[in-house]
Amino acid sequence: MTIEPGAPILVVGSVALDDIETPAGSHREVVGGSANYFGAAASLFAPVRLVAVVGEDFPQAHVDILAGRGVDMAGLERVPGRTFRWHGRYGADFGDAETLETQLNVFEDFDPKIPAAFKATPWVFLGNIHPDLQAGVLQQIERPRLVAADTMNFWITQERRALRQVLAHIDLLIINATEARMLSEQDNLYDAVDAIRAMGPEMLVIKKGSHGAMLFHPEGTFFAPAVPLRRVVDPTGAGDTFAAGLMGYLARSGQRDFGALKRAVINGVVMASFAVEGFGQDHVLALDRRDIEERTARIEAMISLD
Amino acid sequence: MTIEPGAPILVVGSVALDDIETPAGSHREVVGGSANYFGAAASLFAPVRLVAVVGEDFPQAHVDILAGRGVDMAGLERVPGRTFRWHGRYGADFGDAETLETQLNVFEDFDPKIPAAFKATPWVFLGNIHPDLQAGVLQQIERPRLVAADTMNFWITQERRALRQVLAHIDLLIINATEARMLSEQDNLYDAVDAIRAMGPEMLVIKKGSHGAMLFHPEGTFFAPAVPLRRVVDPTGAGDTFAAGLMGYLARSGQRDFGALKRAVINGVVMASFAVEGFGQDHVLALDRRDIEERTARIEAMISLD
Repeated sequence: MTIEPGAPILVVGSVALDDIETPAGSHREVVGGSANYFGAAASLFAPVRLVAVVGEDFPQAHVDILAGRGVDMAGLERVPGRTFRWHGRYGADFGDAETLETQLNVFEDFDPKIPAAFKATPWVFLGNIHPDLQAGVLQQIERPRLVAADTMNFWITQERRALRQVLAHIDLLIINATEARMLSEQDNLYDAVDAIRAMGPEMLVIKKGSHGAMLFHPEGTFFAPAVPLRRVVDPTGAGDTFAAGLMGYLARSGQRDFGALKRAVINGVVMASFAVEGFGQDHVLALDRRDIEERTARIEAMISLD
Repeated sequence: MTIEPGAPILVVGSVALDDIETPAGSHREVVGGSANYFGAAASLFAPVRLVAVVGEDFPQAHVDILAGRGVDMAGLERVPGRTFRWHGRYGADFGDAETLETQLNVFEDFDPKIPAAFKATPWVFLGNIHPDLQAGVLQQIERPRLVAADTMNFWITQERRALRQVLAHIDLLIINATEARMLSEQDNLYDAVDAIRAMGPEMLVIKKGSHGAMLFHPEGTFFAPAVPLRRVVDPTGAGDTFAAGLMGYLARSGQRDFGALKRAVINGVVMASFAVEGFGQDHVLALDRRDIEERTARIEAMISLD
């Protein structure tokens, strides 16, 4: 199936101000959130349409930065109150962050309203928000060419029923191995994959951090190694940036067959590698297409038998 | 560099009787040891010449099984006393085994003597034994086309100086990521790889268990994913069986260029996948070439962009 190359991507998720502590340093009020990380990175591939909410304290300068990169900010509500804030700390292994504080603030009443001009977007990414909100987005839009979604352990354990309803209506779920085992209640990763695909998504991507990512597709399984990195600075937003590379590649190429999905996953691991090399979006905002193409070529060489 | 395809492989290591406990069951007096695991698996690829020691209690039937598979047992010393015995237990994640008991027995005085007919073997694998013994083997033989070696955390911490001397004389080191960090005293895997290659080995293979294996070669880096497995039974000997697939492929093909090394690593992950599916060598002894070729094709498909 070929779609107009470079057609836009709709992302619905959070925009946040994060306090982040990692072994590489600490930063306060770093602009974060799934929709923000996704939008900034995906804009390197195709036009993006963003739906999220911020409070009065959110810097307009950052809204302007995204808009300047081709992210249509018409779906960003600004409402009275403070922006969603998260304070987290990463240990020496840069594994899962310890959450020190979460202030939902304006995000608590977030009810995504999709602007009329966004309703017919061919590529849709549902960021990590309450599954009922993800379902509400799907009800507001025309059937896209491909819907991908992320979720997290909290929704898997606390909102399993709502999550299962969303899973029945998406094409691709992008989660990590721990989440896959939790969602499926299967210890073996491949049993977990089968169980999750039986819940709805035809395709599944399992993120394995420094061990790469796996694509499970009706036509087969594909493995993309991670970019070898000498130094990790901040893993925050790596998952959303991975999704942005993946969806960005599909939107840019206009294709959604198995071969395109494979290359999309490679673009995912490449974008995630840039994400973790800087605090917040520092590194991603400084990239150009050549940087991305250089790393995708490196990954392709790492799995080439020629 | 092309060498006669199917030329023999020399392996020097241990032969043992192991008591093994895993979440899948417990077995006593399982025939094990690095030379045994390697020899049984490598014999599916090329003739093998084995050098090791056993005691009076070692079953002649197993010696006959290996001989029947084309393993030249002329280098197996049988001496008074009991065979090397190891008792280990694996936890629910099938990670590193807990050693419950080690009886060195006849292995304590093992001093490998390479039979004259073995001295000009083109492919050499130094199994996980004291680095001084590994060095002694290299002094007894003609310069082979390729020498690979394994080692373990015990030698890395207790016999670092002796190990460094061996490293200066081998072409390929095959270890896991934890061992690489320990040997190099580097936290970052890629810094570790650089440090180890600076110690001597031109090539390094890092085994990552269910996350696959990486080849670091002067011409580039290659990644082979692990075979997706639904059920693990016993990881004992998986590393030696991996090495057997790798060295076996080289010996069978008669090549040692980057492309051959890549395919050799794929054969390594494939053989390791068979190893963990049965207790001891159960599964490996039942294989034929078609089983191996089927799984290597699966791995090649998992990294193919076509």
